[in-house]
Amino acid sequence: MRASGAGRMAHEPRPDQSTVEVEVERIGGADTSRRDQLAAEEPLEIRLGYGPPTARRRRSLTVTMRTPGDDVELAVGFLFAEGIVRRAADIATAENCGPAVGPRRLRNVVRVELVPGLRVDSKQVARTFLTTSACGLCGKASLQALAYVDHAPVADGTAVRATLIHALPDALRRVQMVFERTGGLHAAALFDHDGRLLDVREDVGRHNALDKLIGARVLADAVPLTNYLVLVSGRAGYELVQKAVAAGVPILAAVGAPSSLAAELARDANVTLLGFVRGGRFNIYSAPQRIDAAA
Amino acid sequence: MRASGAGRMAHEPRPDQSTVEVEVERIGGADTSRRDQLAAEEPLEIRLGYGPPTARRRRSLTVTMRTPGDDVELAVGFLFAEGIVRRAADIATAENCGPAVGPRRLRNVVRVELVPGLRVDSKQVARTFLTTSACGLCGKASLQALAYVDHAPVADGTAVRATLIHALPDALRRVQMVFERTGGLHAAALFDHDGRLLDVREDVGRHNALDKLIGARVLADAVPLTNYLVLVSGRAGYELVQKAVAAGVPILAAVGAPSSLAAELARDANVTLLGFVRGGRFNIYSAPQRIDAAA
Repeated sequence: MRASGAGRMAHEPRPDQSTVEVEVERIGGADTSRRDQLAAEEPLEIRLGYGPPTARRRRSLTVTMRTPGDDVELAVGFLFAEGIVRRAADIATAENCGPAVGPRRLRNVVRVELVPGLRVDSKQVARTFLTTSACGLCGKASLQALAYVDHAPVADGTAVRATLIHALPDALRRVQMVFERTGGLHAAALFDHDGRLLDVREDVGRHNALDKLIGARVLADAVPLTNYLVLVSGRAGYELVQKAVAAGVPILAAVGAPSSLAAELARDANVTLLGFVRGGRFNIYSAPQRIDAAA
Repeated sequence: MRASGAGRMAHEPRPDQSTVEVEVERIGGADTSRRDQLAAEEPLEIRLGYGPPTARRRRSLTVTMRTPGDDVELAVGFLFAEGIVRRAADIATAENCGPAVGPRRLRNVVRVELVPGLRVDSKQVARTFLTTSACGLCGKASLQALAYVDHAPVADGTAVRATLIHALPDALRRVQMVFERTGGLHAAALFDHDGRLLDVREDVGRHNALDKLIGARVLADAVPLTNYLVLVSGRAGYELVQKAVAAGVPILAAVGAPSSLAAELARDANVTLLGFVRGGRFNIYSAPQRIDAAA
């Protein structure tokens, strides 16, 4: 497949796209500079093309407020979590399109064209469109209704040492470049089971950061992420756990607090959910068998 | 109008709805308890009924992941920000409905019925549905396309002292009950121009907390919020500024960082956007005339 913008090296900074310099007046404190760097936020529309050439269907699926950069990975990660894309070979092309807007000439649309032979469930596409807007499902038992993509529970694999978990936030902080400048970006980082940081993505939206991280792995045909763990810089809500389950991530660690529904889904899917991972401590909310607390 | 659940006193705790107790295993640290309180997260569907009795229309508008409690205020605040509801008298009824689900028998739907005589622009309703999902607008200049509800710039009003701003985070922290227990909730707080805290709402979603805060004021026929300022506990994105503009909030202060689009919209709408309000300092990103830095 051809995916413009994909295949970038991990950690490569994109200061041109991910921050915007603005004028500022500072009250209190020692810093008196008149310029400030803000995390860039722009809308991204994700469009999908699918079906045979004779009956090709095109649909605008969702709009997300995101930090520009890694747009293709974001779109692919989103479609993967929704169960529409399963591997890189499902995608014919994925690229930024639409007119170049604003002073930075951004293209705020990504069009993903699936290969013509791929079987796509029109109902799943419609469901994705509906569940990102209004689904009519909330009158049903909430968790069951929201789990519209049915994934098998994540396999157990080997346990990791608690000391390895304690070291993750510092490793993330060392590479989280844009956050340093703006204080305004969420990060999602991929680690192997030896605690080596393999990739990190940043975004104003926490779900977007994780979509970018997982989308890059889908494009590299490196899912499921059975032998990895993921750290997110903030809180962990339902949506983040859902994306981790889709990618087969066995351990999802959050620097901040999990929500009730996040813990519930993690338990159901056998994902090890860790919260408040900072300052040499953390909490285990589900599947504790993957953490070796003694080591 | 009749709005079940509305009219609650400010700050009244709802521990039954806003937190969920779960089992936890704690690694490191002094706390050895096996129970933890998490911020409750559940889906809420917002349904709208409008039009004359002979041609009544009903539509499911959006689904948001929210912390249960203040559901009616949340729905009304959402509809107000979208320009569909302008005052309490526009609403015939607003109430939780749908089946009671889960162990806590929550009703995860709010149905808002507008008064039959109210003129509602069907295009605006459709636009709300579309912009919360897929809008096809992002190929246009982003900010203009997103500003689908056209509001007049917020009037200047009187300036407030910088010392008053410095005191806001502590005032919020004193009443942010659930956050203390869970670390997982965003808050939005309403202050008058003397720095008195009038109301606070919490939610796992920052936009929901602000919708709840503003929705309560709409139901009390107390908008626009010309003589008030709003503090949010986290970062300020585009969506939060959009809601502040709709409610005529002259000063929006954030403990965290603003995004680029938030600062841009605040400038255009003459809203004073403050970021990093903590530790005796803050940054002014727009409309600095409302802050008296000398005092």
